[in-house]
Amino acid sequence: MAVRSVEPNQADQANALLSFDELRARLRAVGEERYHHKHPFHLMMHEGRLSRGQLQAWALNRYYYQSIIPIKDSIILSRGPDPVFRRAWRKRVVDHDGDATSEGGIKRWLKLAEATGLNPEQVRTGQGILPGTRFAVNEYLNIVRNRSLLEAVASSLTEMFSPELITLRVEKLRQHYPWLAGGLDYFEARLYQAPDDSKFAINYVFENAKTRAEQELATQALRDKCDILWAQLDALYFAYVQPGWPPPGAFRIENA
Amino acid sequence: MAVRSVEPNQADQANALLSFDELRARLRAVGEERYHHKHPFHLMMHEGRLSRGQLQAWALNRYYYQSIIPIKDSIILSRGPDPVFRRAWRKRVVDHDGDATSEGGIKRWLKLAEATGLNPEQVRTGQGILPGTRFAVNEYLNIVRNRSLLEAVASSLTEMFSPELITLRVEKLRQHYPWLAGGLDYFEARLYQAPDDSKFAINYVFENAKTRAEQELATQALRDKCDILWAQLDALYFAYVQPGWPPPGAFRIENA
Repeated sequence: MAVRSVEPNQADQANALLSFDELRARLRAVGEERYHHKHPFHLMMHEGRLSRGQLQAWALNRYYYQSIIPIKDSIILSRGPDPVFRRAWRKRVVDHDGDATSEGGIKRWLKLAEATGLNPEQVRTGQGILPGTRFAVNEYLNIVRNRSLLEAVASSLTEMFSPELITLRVEKLRQHYPWLAGGLDYFEARLYQAPDDSKFAINYVFENAKTRAEQELATQALRDKCDILWAQLDALYFAYVQPGWPPPGAFRIENA
Repeated sequence: MAVRSVEPNQADQANALLSFDELRARLRAVGEERYHHKHPFHLMMHEGRLSRGQLQAWALNRYYYQSIIPIKDSIILSRGPDPVFRRAWRKRVVDHDGDATSEGGIKRWLKLAEATGLNPEQVRTGQGILPGTRFAVNEYLNIVRNRSLLEAVASSLTEMFSPELITLRVEKLRQHYPWLAGGLDYFEARLYQAPDDSKFAINYVFENAKTRAEQELATQALRDKCDILWAQLDALYFAYVQPGWPPPGAFRIENA
């Protein structure tokens, strides 16, 4: 009979709780593979190859995503049993909806849309957004409603990756689309908001995922969230880049 | 003071309850504009321009849609207060899940997937389906869960249009992809199942939409359902036709 090795066997390793650093590395690997910084639509944007009309389509569709962020955060608020948790999470709703001292992210995104040449009041109605945008964004609401609070929080962890992408994007937008410069407040604000948020969320996930299985669920929630961002750009690319076939009823680029 | 015309004014007309024929014509117009029979992916399919790998991607992704149909119909069953309604609607669950005398639509779709060269057990796991598929299909569940029963029923009315598309498709699949011939039972069955279903549903919608506003809600539910079908093909086209960029983790065509 073989002597059992002192080394943990593979099954033990697969079930072992990850340390904070291991978990963070695992989450970062998800971002490296799936976050939308590598999407061809963003690559084109950063290379200056998008037309004004394509940037309009992006700003219009992405507005729908922006508009549900404080709704998804309110759902998470409604599910958090702990006042300390809710006080911390409430910041997100304020960041997007604004308060007496700040216009908030939704308003800032409308300014970006306006800088692309869209009428912000029309953008606000959501008319002309792609069904693919609506379905992907609504899935974000499904996740925070229907999965555990742990997974709902973990799905926000794309904020671990967003400061790097936003830094690059602002630089490239200024360089290639200087007429957009007046509309970049949204991104400037996110650069100081997101790091606090992601730090809180990753600590929450580490402390509340008590088993490896829960750590895997949290990782999957981040993977699914990355897919939600990615699919929005797929829909944009299909409709407005190649083959350039917006579905019936969707926004049409003028003089494209 | 102007004498009021005997003709109903525009506001009255916009609020007038549609007759059965008017409502049906309105619903048919939605299909003419938005049903996926005009989608470029289907046009390619019918022209014989899809590769086996592209047909595999279609069969794999569409399986996810097929697999949730009896779930969405069970949700509708659960919301129907009337035993007569539920008895009629139950047929749909049987059609897809099967019974002692029939294998059911889900099994038949797996046979189609197998005829494309996929392993049906792998298809059943759903691994490799596009996020865009998942989000669009899940939106169908959102609609039947969250809107009125009237709208949930109306969202099934794409069956008004499916027999014509399926008749064409079966002819074109036999012509261009003869190696698929053994996998077409699903479509043969739908040709006799769908007409009864759509007849019941349109009668239900007409009888239960008591105001023009409700008729408009029903029409919008059909529009949204068309978008759900259309968006699934957008995702397929983007990933497997042009530019041909499947997202991380999705099915890859071999030897493409």
